Amino acid sequence: MQIEHTNWPEVEKRLRSSTLLLLPVGSVEQHGPNGLIGTDHLVAEALARRVGEDLGELVAPTLAYGMSHHHLGFPGTSSLSPRTMILLVCDILSGFYRNGFRRFYFVNGHGGNDSSLKAAFSEFLLDHPDARTALSNWWLLPEVTEQEKIFFGDSNGYHATCGEVAVTWHLYPHLERPIAPGRAPDPHHEWPLGPERFRTLYPDGRMGSDPSLSTAEKGEVLFGIARRTIREKVREFAAAP
Amino acid sequence: MQIEHTNWPEVEKRLRSSTLLLLPVGSVEQHGPNGLIGTDHLVAEALARRVGEDLGELVAPTLAYGMSHHHLGFPGTSSLSPRTMILLVCDILSGFYRNGFRRFYFVNGHGGNDSSLKAAFSEFLLDHPDARTALSNWWLLPEVTEQEKIFFGDSNGYHATCGEVAVTWHLYPHLERPIAPGRAPDPHHEWPLGPERFRTLYPDGRMGSDPSLSTAEKGEVLFGIARRTIREKVREFAAAP
Amino acid sequence: MQIEHTNWPEVEKRLRSSTLLLLPVGSVEQHGPNGLIGTDHLVAEALARRVGEDLGELVAPTLAYGMSHHHLGFPGTSSLSPRTMILLVCDILSGFYRNGFRRFYFVNGHGGNDSSLKAAFSEFLLDHPDARTALSNWWLLPEVTEQEKIFFGDSNGYHATCGEVAVTWHLYPHLERPIAPGRAPDPHHEWPLGPERFRTLYPDGRMGSDPSLSTAEKGEVLFGIARRTIREKVREFAAAP
Amino acid sequence: MQIEHTNWPEVEKRLRSSTLLLLPVGSVEQHGPNGLIGTDHLVAEALARRVGEDLGELVAPTLAYGMSHHHLGFPGTSSLSPRTMILLVCDILSGFYRNGFRRFYFVNGHGGNDSSLKAAFSEFLLDHPDARTALSNWWLLPEVTEQEKIFFGDSNGYHATCGEVAVTWHLYPHLERPIAPGRAPDPHHEWPLGPERFRTLYPDGRMGSDPSLSTAEKGEVLFGIARRTIREKVREFAAAP
Amino acid sequence: MQIEHTNWPEVEKRLRSSTLLLLPVGSVEQHGPNGLIGTDHLVAEALARRVGEDLGELVAPTLAYGMSHHHLGFPGTSSLSPRTMILLVCDILSGFYRNGFRRFYFVNGHGGNDSSLKAAFSEFLLDHPDARTALSNWWLLPEVTEQEKIFFGDSNGYHATCGEVAVTWHLYPHLERPIAPGRAPDPHHEWPLGPERFRTLYPDGRMGSDPSLSTAEKGEVLFGIARRTIREKVREFAAAP
Amino acid sequence: MQIEHTNWPEVEKRLRSSTLLLLPVGSVEQHGPNGLIGTDHLVAEALARRVGEDLGELVAPTLAYGMSHHHLGFPGTSSLSPRTMILLVCDILSGFYRNGFRRFYFVNGHGGNDSSLKAAFSEFLLDHPDARTALSNWWLLPEVTEQEKIFFGDSNGYHATCGEVAVTWHLYPHLERPIAPGRAPDPHHEWPLGPERFRTLYPDGRMGSDPSLSTAEKGEVLFGIARRTIREKVREFAAAP
Repeated sequence: MQIEHTNWPEVEKRLRSSTLLLLPVGSVEQHGPNGLIGTDHLVAEALARRVGEDLGELVAPTLAYGMSHHHLGFPGTSSLSPRTMILLVCDILSGFYRNGFRRFYFVNGHGGNDSSLKAAFSEFLLDHPDARTALSNWWLLPEVTEQEKIFFGDSNGYHATCGEVAVTWHLYPHLERPIAPGRAPDPHHEWPLGPERFRTLYPDGRMGSDPSLSTAEKGEVLFGIARRTIREKVREFAAAP
Repeated sequence: MQIEHTNWPEVEKRLRSSTLLLLPVGSVEQHGPNGLIGTDHLVAEALARRVGEDLGELVAPTLAYGMSHHHLGFPGTSSLSPRTMILLVCDILSGFYRNGFRRFYFVNGHGGNDSSLKAAFSEFLLDHPDARTALSNWWLLPEVTEQEKIFFGDSNGYHATCGEVAVTWHLYPHLERPIAPGRAPDPHHEWPLGPERFRTLYPDGRMGSDPSLSTAEKGEVLFGIARRTIREKVREFAAAP
Repeated sequence: MQIEHTNWPEVEKRLRSSTLLLLPVGSVEQHGPNGLIGTDHLVAEALARRVGEDLGELVAPTLAYGMSHHHLGFPGTSSLSPRTMILLVCDILSGFYRNGFRRFYFVNGHGGNDSSLKAAFSEFLLDHPDARTALSNWWLLPEVTEQEKIFFGDSNGYHATCGEVAVTWHLYPHLERPIAPGRAPDPHHEWPLGPERFRTLYPDGRMGSDPSLSTAEKGEVLFGIARRTIREKVREFAAAP
Repeated sequence: MQIEHTNWPEVEKRLRSSTLLLLPVGSVEQHGPNGLIGTDHLVAEALARRVGEDLGELVAPTLAYGMSHHHLGFPGTSSLSPRTMILLVCDILSGFYRNGFRRFYFVNGHGGNDSSLKAAFSEFLLDHPDARTALSNWWLLPEVTEQEKIFFGDSNGYHATCGEVAVTWHLYPHLERPIAPGRAPDPHHEWPLGPERFRTLYPDGRMGSDPSLSTAEKGEVLFGIARRTIREKVREFAAAP
Repeated sequence: MQIEHTNWPEVEKRLRSSTLLLLPVGSVEQHGPNGLIGTDHLVAEALARRVGEDLGELVAPTLAYGMSHHHLGFPGTSSLSPRTMILLVCDILSGFYRNGFRRFYFVNGHGGNDSSLKAAFSEFLLDHPDARTALSNWWLLPEVTEQEKIFFGDSNGYHATCGEVAVTWHLYPHLERPIAPGRAPDPHHEWPLGPERFRTLYPDGRMGSDPSLSTAEKGEVLFGIARRTIREKVREFAAAP
Repeated sequence: MQIEHTNWPEVEKRLRSSTLLLLPVGSVEQHGPNGLIGTDHLVAEALARRVGEDLGELVAPTLAYGMSHHHLGFPGTSSLSPRTMILLVCDILSGFYRNGFRRFYFVNGHGGNDSSLKAAFSEFLLDHPDARTALSNWWLLPEVTEQEKIFFGDSNGYHATCGEVAVTWHLYPHLERPIAPGRAPDPHHEWPLGPERFRTLYPDGRMGSDPSLSTAEKGEVLFGIARRTIREKVREFAAAP
């Protein structure tokens, strides 16, 4: 259940049996010439909401914007500085904590957020010893990467991957955009990068991927794997002492 | 068009004819015993997206969380401190500015955000002289308040109003929740309030409203008025020198 | 009584009967070709001190500097960023709270401060549930605006108004400076503005006002109205439970 | 001339011949059982204004609040944290710099401000290479301390000193308050102190002083010395290349 | 060469041929009942200095303190919040950049720093497009972990590992402290943790390690591998376009 | 004993008899054409460690970086902004406090740090009433300056002084670098300075010093005086109630 679709007496009642909250977080950033700018938050949002339905747990509104400094050279990207993102996440956690939530499970769709999320958790936990936080980066789940290997071999890539493009086509079939076959340049070891440098090294925004291999059907499979895997992780997290 | 549903070459092309971006912003906070926790951002989001469609302009992902400190005593509410919200908005504006946007129109659904949004605009404009920012608080538009007066008389109230409840029922008919007739206590002159004090003065979260008067039909009328009014304001904003 | 003219045992004694403090706040910014740069803090200071005398309440030293980013294009203006102003007000409130004050009444002379003051109050109240804060923007009091309408009709304007110029002449007769008749350009709907843009739209700093209509006598009347009105509001604030 | 008593065209004209600004800064803190809470800012303000008159230079509104954490245990004290004070001073300097001021001379009345002021200057100068900042702590001028030695011997003390009490009586004769003879405890080497610890070590707020030796006549002499000394320093500062 | 052992004309000369700087960073935190509190910064420091000697590159003074919130429940630990650490690293980078350095290679000894370091790099690179930053987490180098597997099998663990204890004994033989054999509890999936929670789950501070297997000889081998591996990475980093 | 060379059970045991911690702090900045860039932290570090040995007290890892904005025009200098340094010191103090330390004695080697350290102490003490902080600026100890007068007369100077150069040669004999006789320009009264301005006024980085007079033997004498003097101060600080 999306918490924004409930009212406060319903939440109050719900808190008596579970103090868990699912929080989707993503980014607003370029995903290559045919990937959606919202890829990261749209996938995280769909996963969190499906898992929430599966388990009957509450889901918070999506944090769409993330730490995407390196993509700022491409139109349509915006980005939070890590310090802003840490403050943002700490404020949101503190707010929900104040009226009763204790366990917070983030479903993350964007690699650049990982640092800021964990930093925020560390700050928050320092003064909230009875709170628990957890995080799943869906595209790094071994269950997902194994299937991507089967589907895309070495051409899944590292940004604007075949896998994430496929999942968005499963979720938003009318937004499917074809692309000519061909792999983008492989990532250099240099990281992180400033926005100008990123665009020089990766001119169309992709890193090592060939999203001509993506299909909505493959996306459906990957989404199902991620959903089931995260569902089990959340179940454990909710049940842990 | 929602920018998250496009890709960067589409945005690049779009920027050649318009550098305008619509940004919906709301809150995650209690709206009385039958109003939705997401009321403020759901309405702002729907308005921004409809106006975006009407005018063919791009709409950014919704900033769902707002400054709701005074509602933190009610389950399901979370809140950004004004300083976090200022940083958040400045980062988002700076990001979109960096790759070409120049005009930013916020559609706001929550009174508590007004201060932080204007503060952020002032900070941003200080160092971006060619940018323009604007803001509509939809529930304060004279066209809207006049119609609310006709529909609800003195019982519209100040928080969890008949009008906003009605609009959410128009947008989400399946989330309509009945409530027994009766007006909540009228607002005191004391403002702002801490969360404990707010809950003491307004025990069920409403301020002076009687949402038993709300209907989805009235919501449709109000939404239409707001949509048309904001559409004209955005058109002017886009055309101004 | 100005608190800076007392000593700590006197304040300690005073706190046994009243924990109220009046705080004047204004700005240091251009007020058109003949208005004083200190207009906003000088008027707020005089009002707070007179009301303090009327009621026998303590008055804190004036916060002269405010949020005036949009006026920075004119010599003699300085400005606090909203984030600085929020920190400043929170520190001052926390300090006085720590040794016994509980009710804080701000007399504000500058529109640009309104956001930052309310933001600061919200932050402060979150962790000080037994504190109370209040704010009067003297130039927005209906009692004042009605009289201004009588005196100046449509020519009072929005910045460097006839009313505020008149009040400064009442307070500082030797600083009266004549100006040729004529209304400044009316405000555009665009707001807020960066400093360069403001000066382009309002070349001499005034917004819609004709301060050739100001006189010290009118200023005396307006000041008296504001003083009496605020006095009653403070009395209520002090007496409220 | 106080800049708050001028208008922007007058400042614009003045900037053609001098880009100097005098800024008084003090504190709002206990000064023992008979010293004024405003001692530090009232003296700094009077000195800056007299020196401004002597030299025909502009004087900014007083920064009344300073860094007084250690005095917070006494009623009537408030305090800015060093970080707030650094931001405050940087904002004020940046604001006046933006419309033409280049040389900033602070007249300081409070030891606790010294660190924050110098910190702010360092931050500001890093990015404003053509600006100049300077600071006089009036009570540390050798010309002043020599005369205090003659007047008060070893009983001048370190806080709520005979000298500063005397100067306030010269400036505000009607606020003279007698006190029984006797020296307060001498300062310990421990510094800085938290507020509780300070009040334990210095129960009536004074440090090593016997303000029964203060008279308005001695205050007049000390004020005259400080005024003349600072005047010469400002003159040199204004003339330096 | 340690930069602290040079003077500015030597650095100026050096910058003509190389703008690279090595920066060791670690932590001050418990490393189990027999591991050194300084383990992380002592190892990083030794590696950076040896690599600096090998390549003739300059090495900056060690950043000893890191992000160790989760270890604060154990005596002798201190920690920087992620936001402080980001500011710290950005300031240090900006400082060295201002007088000529352009390539910054961090040798990191502590997992908890990884997020803050990368966050700082992203912030710094946003406005310094010609700078380059890189980071090696020595204990995660595949060359190192393979050898640890050979030496310690499954008993290397995750905190206060056999490997890092061994390296400190190689570097500081007189600080070798024996410990009885036995593996500490294996890490839970829960992460990050607050300090109380960490100490509950890992009572003696170790995570899954059995440092009775550590010897100075094994430490020498591991240190040699890390040194050679990082040396090659730095060489590549320095030579890249 | 250096705390980084101990383990947590040793610290836990030590805290039963003493909660004191010594903290060396310095800078990374130019010290003239022949002085070491690390002068300030190397001397502070050596002093703190020797005093720690003398008294059997724990010594924390050195804070090498300090507030050196004015030296940023010279290669090899880096600097923390005062706000960063305040946060850094507050975090470190809060961390050690959390697991048992109560008395913190800083041995400082750099004048530019004095403000930030005292500011940090004030912030920290506000909420830690049972903590104690103290600071020695070794080069300002009267015992040291008297001996410097004997050794160097008026040629000791104010930055890159004969005394500090001599002490580094005593500590690091292999880093002794000769310099031709001659005094650098005397300091102007202007302070603080931006980096460009500093280099203009003091072209080789020294202020009023003639380090050709430095010898390792004089350095040994000065170091011994500073060590004994600080040892006594720390002893008193540890014993005070």
